[in-house]
Amino acid sequence: MFETAEVGHKIDKETYAAELPVLRAALLDAQYELLQTGKFPVVLVIAGVDGAGKGETVNALTEWMDPRHIEVHGFGPPSDEEAARPPMWRFWRSLPPSGKTGIFFGSWYTAPILQRVLSDQTESQFDQSLEAINRFERMLADEGALVLKFWFHLSKKAQKKRFEKLEADPATRWRVTKQEWKNFKHYNEFKEVSARALRETNMAHAPWIVVEGEEERYRSLTVGKTLLAALRARLDAAKLPAATPTAPAPMPAIDNRNILDCVDLASTIDKASYETQLEELQGRLALLTRRPGFRKRSLVLAFEGWDAAGKGGAIRRVTGALDARAYDIIAVAAPSDEERRQPYLWRFWRRLPGHGRVTVFDRTWYGRVLVERVEGYCAQSDWLRAYSEINDFEEQLVKAGAILCKFYLHISPEEQLRRFEERQALNFKRFKITEEDWRNRDKWPQYVQAVCDMVDRTSTEIAPWTLVAAESKYLARLQVLQTICDRLEQALD
Amino acid sequence: MFETAEVGHKIDKETYAAELPVLRAALLDAQYELLQTGKFPVVLVIAGVDGAGKGETVNALTEWMDPRHIEVHGFGPPSDEEAARPPMWRFWRSLPPSGKTGIFFGSWYTAPILQRVLSDQTESQFDQSLEAINRFERMLADEGALVLKFWFHLSKKAQKKRFEKLEADPATRWRVTKQEWKNFKHYNEFKEVSARALRETNMAHAPWIVVEGEEERYRSLTVGKTLLAALRARLDAAKLPAATPTAPAPMPAIDNRNILDCVDLASTIDKASYETQLEELQGRLALLTRRPGFRKRSLVLAFEGWDAAGKGGAIRRVTGALDARAYDIIAVAAPSDEERRQPYLWRFWRRLPGHGRVTVFDRTWYGRVLVERVEGYCAQSDWLRAYSEINDFEEQLVKAGAILCKFYLHISPEEQLRRFEERQALNFKRFKITEEDWRNRDKWPQYVQAVCDMVDRTSTEIAPWTLVAAESKYLARLQVLQTICDRLEQALD
Repeated sequence: MFETAEVGHKIDKETYAAELPVLRAALLDAQYELLQTGKFPVVLVIAGVDGAGKGETVNALTEWMDPRHIEVHGFGPPSDEEAARPPMWRFWRSLPPSGKTGIFFGSWYTAPILQRVLSDQTESQFDQSLEAINRFERMLADEGALVLKFWFHLSKKAQKKRFEKLEADPATRWRVTKQEWKNFKHYNEFKEVSARALRETNMAHAPWIVVEGEEERYRSLTVGKTLLAALRARLDAAKLPAATPTAPAPMPAIDNRNILDCVDLASTIDKASYETQLEELQGRLALLTRRPGFRKRSLVLAFEGWDAAGKGGAIRRVTGALDARAYDIIAVAAPSDEERRQPYLWRFWRRLPGHGRVTVFDRTWYGRVLVERVEGYCAQSDWLRAYSEINDFEEQLVKAGAILCKFYLHISPEEQLRRFEERQALNFKRFKITEEDWRNRDKWPQYVQAVCDMVDRTSTEIAPWTLVAAESKYLARLQVLQTICDRLEQALD
Repeated sequence: MFETAEVGHKIDKETYAAELPVLRAALLDAQYELLQTGKFPVVLVIAGVDGAGKGETVNALTEWMDPRHIEVHGFGPPSDEEAARPPMWRFWRSLPPSGKTGIFFGSWYTAPILQRVLSDQTESQFDQSLEAINRFERMLADEGALVLKFWFHLSKKAQKKRFEKLEADPATRWRVTKQEWKNFKHYNEFKEVSARALRETNMAHAPWIVVEGEEERYRSLTVGKTLLAALRARLDAAKLPAATPTAPAPMPAIDNRNILDCVDLASTIDKASYETQLEELQGRLALLTRRPGFRKRSLVLAFEGWDAAGKGGAIRRVTGALDARAYDIIAVAAPSDEERRQPYLWRFWRRLPGHGRVTVFDRTWYGRVLVERVEGYCAQSDWLRAYSEINDFEEQLVKAGAILCKFYLHISPEEQLRRFEERQALNFKRFKITEEDWRNRDKWPQYVQAVCDMVDRTSTEIAPWTLVAAESKYLARLQVLQTICDRLEQALD
């Protein structure tokens, strides 16, 4: 992996002086074209060994190009807001919008490599981290991002020499700390672990470029030219590269039976029993969210369902048991323009609760495989890849301590019609019914198919779907509360 | 102030049961109308003594209305990201967008009152805090927000009784902690200090409504009805209330001399001297931002100036001395739709640097009193009030430890023309010149007036303007760097 970066690459001063102005002008040109077309975001990962010129190269890039449209992110210890969320949250919140460039100086590679070398992480855990990275970068590429990863390499001898040189100069002495020397002792392990990381994550859509770090002119010019070539290729392409080839869309079950048919819509409950049980469940939920153990967890509630299935009512029965300061409800609507310039899941990542908090999503990240699929708002390849992206997202949530409950509120088309008509009659509910609701109704069978596929592909052991029998609003609310209480209890006990 | 809230207000069950459904339907109706028209945001402050039913009332409001469009914010100890910025940052980041309601449970009143009662803050410091609050709420109201502040009151006897009752019930015991009893000992001081706070901040555009907290039905219904009346009045009004009456626009100096004329545009410097001085100043800046003292400060650089005055070039010479990970450059462009739903300064507040960091604004919050004023993008009353809002904003920045440097890069109209023509000729700078630049040029005298008024009204001792002689790009860059270094040194020494 690193052999070609130990051959003593050099660029002489004259060549550099001749090439640099041309490169700068072309980079600037490409940068402005990107900005004006807003076609895609650029994600640059800058990684590698200490002292190999990462900082100098980033500084050179920001000097050559217009720094107003480059966001450089260094990552120290997580802030407390970051620590209360999945580890990838800090990277998601730093993603550049379309048209701009984000430089990740220190990235999602740092923690896995450090943990593998310096703490007791096993090889298989390490491989899992790399797999997760692959899926993340695949998602970025599928969302249109240009992803380039630069690894700055130095031989052991060269690194030692470099540290000694930096230490000798009072102006740069501060750059070599005990930590650098400590890591140096593990040079060989770092090299081996990094090589594995690079090998397993070197993808066509997110390639590693290994840069020999000894000589400044060589490394800057290499990075600049690589970036320029990649930018130009993408800008000049008539359209974005075809998305990942995907499997064909799922088929309906050939016997025409499906999971929604198995939901019992016939049961009912009388009002008195409902009220007794409701009070009891709300009391239980109130106490559960106030348990000390919950202060290190969070609760994420995802609500999907047919129009008029009673999501709002169910949500209100849940929040009615909570302290109003402890929860947020996100009514998912059309994305804002800031959200449109980001990967699909970005608008959900930004709303994740911190520790001790509850976030209720009224409609969710499943919009992509439901309404967007059925209405054709996104390409088939987009919704097909969404299943695994969503599973990744939810896995990260759960791993970070979130308790995630997903509800699909199911009713019959007849009951929906009854409720639509009732809403139109009731003055203060007239806002709740729109033309779109009527249109969606016409596509009932397609939605059934979409829901069944969704449950099929995203009901995982860590984040199962609960299909709620919502023909009776009372029973639906009880089932939702019961599920949340059980899951919380299980998690906190 | 509180007498009317110790008279034993009560609503009997029957009246409550009769009135509540009507109130709820009307509140919901108003809430949806607000959401759909997106006319204004609603800011509700919930404050008052412990145990007076604040939490219950907020819970009732979220139950009666659609909780998906109400954001409830409780404020505990600041997170580390909040602690690294001015104290008001956490409230700015929590402001509701137009069309939605934000409930501030714990607010900008909490800290001043606690500090006055429990620590050694003097009465005049307290009054200053209240003045700052008045300016903040005035800004909110001028930006169109409906601001209502509820103070929940209990007599000393009633508070004691309430605590004892809560403690007796195992289900509510957790709500009375040592802290509540500790505060109770200071009941009289809290009452006196709060009364002063309420008196000094009770404004027509942000009124206090004192609510007797003893009886649940009374207090909920009072809050609900007050909110409904205020909402309805604003929704039914043909347009927003007239903004604060403002002084007439400033007059040009009658002798036609102005501060820009005093900028020396004739001086030049040779390239060699420039390069020597540049290197020296960049070195100085690099070391200054790496001083340990800077880790508890931040640097905010605000750049304004004529088109083609060389802002970009000056900024690059500054950032060239910094670690690319340590700074952000905000190129201020048209606001995003999320920003348009917020007060004008919100989009700058959200970008403020944390400790140890630098943020460079390429064009700034002064847009309102420059381009928006001259082009008529906002009403005269809006840009007239902006001066003091900006001074407040900058004062908060500086008080929180930011070092703020504001630059206006001045050139002659002849030099601007020369640079425009040069840019059009140079291929890789062609993006830098637009139709708009030519249009702005036609309004030179109006911009001169706007710049002079701006300097006049916002060059304060804590945040002075530096008028940069930018006819020579070299001299401009040196002046900018020199100013930043001097200010940093002064602040860190």
